[in-house]
Amino acid sequence: MASTNGITRNAPRISINCDMGEGYARWKLGPDDELMPLIDYANVACGFHAGDHSIMLKSVRSALRHGVRIGAHPGLDDIKGFGRRRFDVTQDEVYSLALYQLGALKTMVEAEGGRLSHVKVHGALYFMLRDDPALLRAFLRAHVSLSPSDPIPFFGLAGTAHEAICKEMGVPFVPELFVDIDYNSEGRLLSVPESKVPTEQGIKDKMARILNDRETFDIDLKPLKLAFLDGPYSICLHSDMPTALANVKAARQMVDRFKAGA
Amino acid sequence: MASTNGITRNAPRISINCDMGEGYARWKLGPDDELMPLIDYANVACGFHAGDHSIMLKSVRSALRHGVRIGAHPGLDDIKGFGRRRFDVTQDEVYSLALYQLGALKTMVEAEGGRLSHVKVHGALYFMLRDDPALLRAFLRAHVSLSPSDPIPFFGLAGTAHEAICKEMGVPFVPELFVDIDYNSEGRLLSVPESKVPTEQGIKDKMARILNDRETFDIDLKPLKLAFLDGPYSICLHSDMPTALANVKAARQMVDRFKAGA
Amino acid sequence: MASTNGITRNAPRISINCDMGEGYARWKLGPDDELMPLIDYANVACGFHAGDHSIMLKSVRSALRHGVRIGAHPGLDDIKGFGRRRFDVTQDEVYSLALYQLGALKTMVEAEGGRLSHVKVHGALYFMLRDDPALLRAFLRAHVSLSPSDPIPFFGLAGTAHEAICKEMGVPFVPELFVDIDYNSEGRLLSVPESKVPTEQGIKDKMARILNDRETFDIDLKPLKLAFLDGPYSICLHSDMPTALANVKAARQMVDRFKAGA
Amino acid sequence: MASTNGITRNAPRISINCDMGEGYARWKLGPDDELMPLIDYANVACGFHAGDHSIMLKSVRSALRHGVRIGAHPGLDDIKGFGRRRFDVTQDEVYSLALYQLGALKTMVEAEGGRLSHVKVHGALYFMLRDDPALLRAFLRAHVSLSPSDPIPFFGLAGTAHEAICKEMGVPFVPELFVDIDYNSEGRLLSVPESKVPTEQGIKDKMARILNDRETFDIDLKPLKLAFLDGPYSICLHSDMPTALANVKAARQMVDRFKAGA
Repeated sequence: MASTNGITRNAPRISINCDMGEGYARWKLGPDDELMPLIDYANVACGFHAGDHSIMLKSVRSALRHGVRIGAHPGLDDIKGFGRRRFDVTQDEVYSLALYQLGALKTMVEAEGGRLSHVKVHGALYFMLRDDPALLRAFLRAHVSLSPSDPIPFFGLAGTAHEAICKEMGVPFVPELFVDIDYNSEGRLLSVPESKVPTEQGIKDKMARILNDRETFDIDLKPLKLAFLDGPYSICLHSDMPTALANVKAARQMVDRFKAGA
Repeated sequence: MASTNGITRNAPRISINCDMGEGYARWKLGPDDELMPLIDYANVACGFHAGDHSIMLKSVRSALRHGVRIGAHPGLDDIKGFGRRRFDVTQDEVYSLALYQLGALKTMVEAEGGRLSHVKVHGALYFMLRDDPALLRAFLRAHVSLSPSDPIPFFGLAGTAHEAICKEMGVPFVPELFVDIDYNSEGRLLSVPESKVPTEQGIKDKMARILNDRETFDIDLKPLKLAFLDGPYSICLHSDMPTALANVKAARQMVDRFKAGA
Repeated sequence: MASTNGITRNAPRISINCDMGEGYARWKLGPDDELMPLIDYANVACGFHAGDHSIMLKSVRSALRHGVRIGAHPGLDDIKGFGRRRFDVTQDEVYSLALYQLGALKTMVEAEGGRLSHVKVHGALYFMLRDDPALLRAFLRAHVSLSPSDPIPFFGLAGTAHEAICKEMGVPFVPELFVDIDYNSEGRLLSVPESKVPTEQGIKDKMARILNDRETFDIDLKPLKLAFLDGPYSICLHSDMPTALANVKAARQMVDRFKAGA
Repeated sequence: MASTNGITRNAPRISINCDMGEGYARWKLGPDDELMPLIDYANVACGFHAGDHSIMLKSVRSALRHGVRIGAHPGLDDIKGFGRRRFDVTQDEVYSLALYQLGALKTMVEAEGGRLSHVKVHGALYFMLRDDPALLRAFLRAHVSLSPSDPIPFFGLAGTAHEAICKEMGVPFVPELFVDIDYNSEGRLLSVPESKVPTEQGIKDKMARILNDRETFDIDLKPLKLAFLDGPYSICLHSDMPTALANVKAARQMVDRFKAGA
């Protein structure tokens, strides 16, 4: 990350990111107001899998009030499936859905006096981009076009196409790490239903191991090396889990203590 | 229009604008491909009353190929009503729906190597902004934020709040003139069902009068003075009328002849 | 209500009804699972202002398990406005939106072995039907067509067109009464923001007055005569208030005690 | 088809069916008004992949005026993909989406004095039901519940699970045959882009062969035996092809001549 992008340059080495603004019209999802003071990066839904222009504006204003960095959280154009259903899309469609969502949020953030800090893709699209380099390139063409001379970071999965294609296209890459869902013994990330229900203590144990030993625990509580923890990384926590607030508080406390040298 | 905005500076004094990209998903509306070579300004729907990211990209690329200026055509968030149903919205909602739509299209145009040239509001929102200065100010705050030092032009109705509030907020204003729907004898614009069905000859007659005499004919074919024809103005034609192609061809021919000094 | 409709014939004279199934796709609204055992009538959203086929099926099955009567809760075709925004609709549109929603739910209830018990209209449409007899007649033509020889009851506002047009068209009418929002001193129902925040004790006080004295308290806690309490009526409570569960529990307790002769 | 269902009993042995009402909100698709007098069965879209309550009512009224039988044309809940994108759905979801759509249309047809005649599934769902017997059983549970003692016919692909599971569940099955898209030499149906562009003469040639010889031509114009042509069958033509009207006219003419003994 040799980027001269101001936001990237001053970014914390260890950070917490959460998806925000994932309500829709009359409906809420997650305790956004309580979470905002606890996180470093808000991934704001852009209206395709969740969120709408009105919720986006509220999320942007809330993040700015709390000094939280604001990233785009684009997804498939699929409100009814919350962006979690896979279906075929063309490269042109990925390019245009990225331009649309990133452009809408970036313009809103800037109108409110802020600056878009990063991109974190949502749901099925996150995995489709990991699995299909041509789609990811189409996405990143849109991503890069936002600020061609100094692209903002892409949050993704280390050791996958996310990282490789970002490198290929000159996009700063920030690896993500999960502590409220599990990895199997090979380091593959498991989905929410495949994972054990997280506990506060479990999250604290993982965070301590991550921060001190640069490894985490897998689903069987065996230590799991994660090579990418040597550089900057971001802990992603789910805002829509029933225990979201306790989970994020636990992670925040551990990061703060570690930074305070405790 | 003392703007130093390049696009404004070189804008034609007499132009033709059409709404473009007003299909949705599987559905088409209007002969866009045939109209594009005939117009100066394409008002591209931004996904709220019509259009979607995929159609927008196709419209932007087509306009760029034809050297047509690309403007945003934002509407109420109401696909089912095609943005033609009035319902209450707050100032914050107008501000955020404007940022969202304008930002999405602007980003797409710029990614494709173009530049957003103007804003033409759609349907019910066009009239709500005419009738409620507070809503229009909210809209224009978003509009101005796109390029604060050099706002792009707003296409609207001369002699209404459109013109007055644009002036108040430093936004270049381009008056629109209609030749495929009618004005009553007081100069009030009539809706499609209130108007007579347009004919090619009728459009040519009106265009000749406009270009040569700076007045038009009202619904009873009486001459109607339109004071604003002294400065730059734009003829707006409907792309979704059954006779859209013939209408636009007739208007284009008259403008071209006039410019050729015929 | 001389109807021979079995459901109507055995209906409780005093009942509690709640809107149910008002989530959408990934989003929930209200503690439906906890409320279901406490109510007599579930007004199930039909997919136009909230709900979808999947949520409807879950709501129908839950109501059947709890022996709760299932009614249709149709609204305007307006997910983004939660059916609370007024906009113009034609009589044909009201007729077809009613047929669509009532037909979908009725078919689902019957496939699951139940029977549709009543209709309670949602949001803006509820008030539009109260204010426009022609629209209400269009709605009731659809309503009656479901079971022409024995129409199911319509829940509405006593003393308004709801009651008069139902009578005119031979539709059983059940007056509704509200205890978690307020009436002004003239007996006009106030909206949620116009009302005071309800308390458990306040609801109990109103319920006691209703059950024992056939009057309630207005917003200033002055007694308010409600003539319609002589016949069968239904107490409507909002499932989407933060205190919904406590409110419904309080009302249920009072009704049960009263029926037990306490 | 030993069904005692009146509609089935009197059904034509050779018929033409077309998808109808596949516009959406402001948008039209196909020349419905011109096609209606030419067809036997209208498959009316039910609002999930296309159509809405208002368009459905217009289609039902038009079909009734022309004496055309009205069937339901249900699809996946996916307006943006026109029901043509495959994504995972559960059996419960298929059951509830079928109840919802079939119930809505059936209620509308009956309110207008008609009777639902058949079910023809749309797009991706048509093929998903062919490929997954468990999903098809879930769908047919909903289908049967509409009229348990006398289910209406299901239009589908002969020799596939469509036919087998219909038989298993006691649902009358009507095989469909296509003449505006192609079969390969093994008799597998090809998609629109895989097929040759149809011509009037090509359709007439195929129709003659079908009617006289109970076989058709494959994409290479080799004769192709279609065993199912011994019993009743229905020719399905696409209403959204550019040449839809000419195609249907050609097929109609051939059927009429054949019936007239020509």
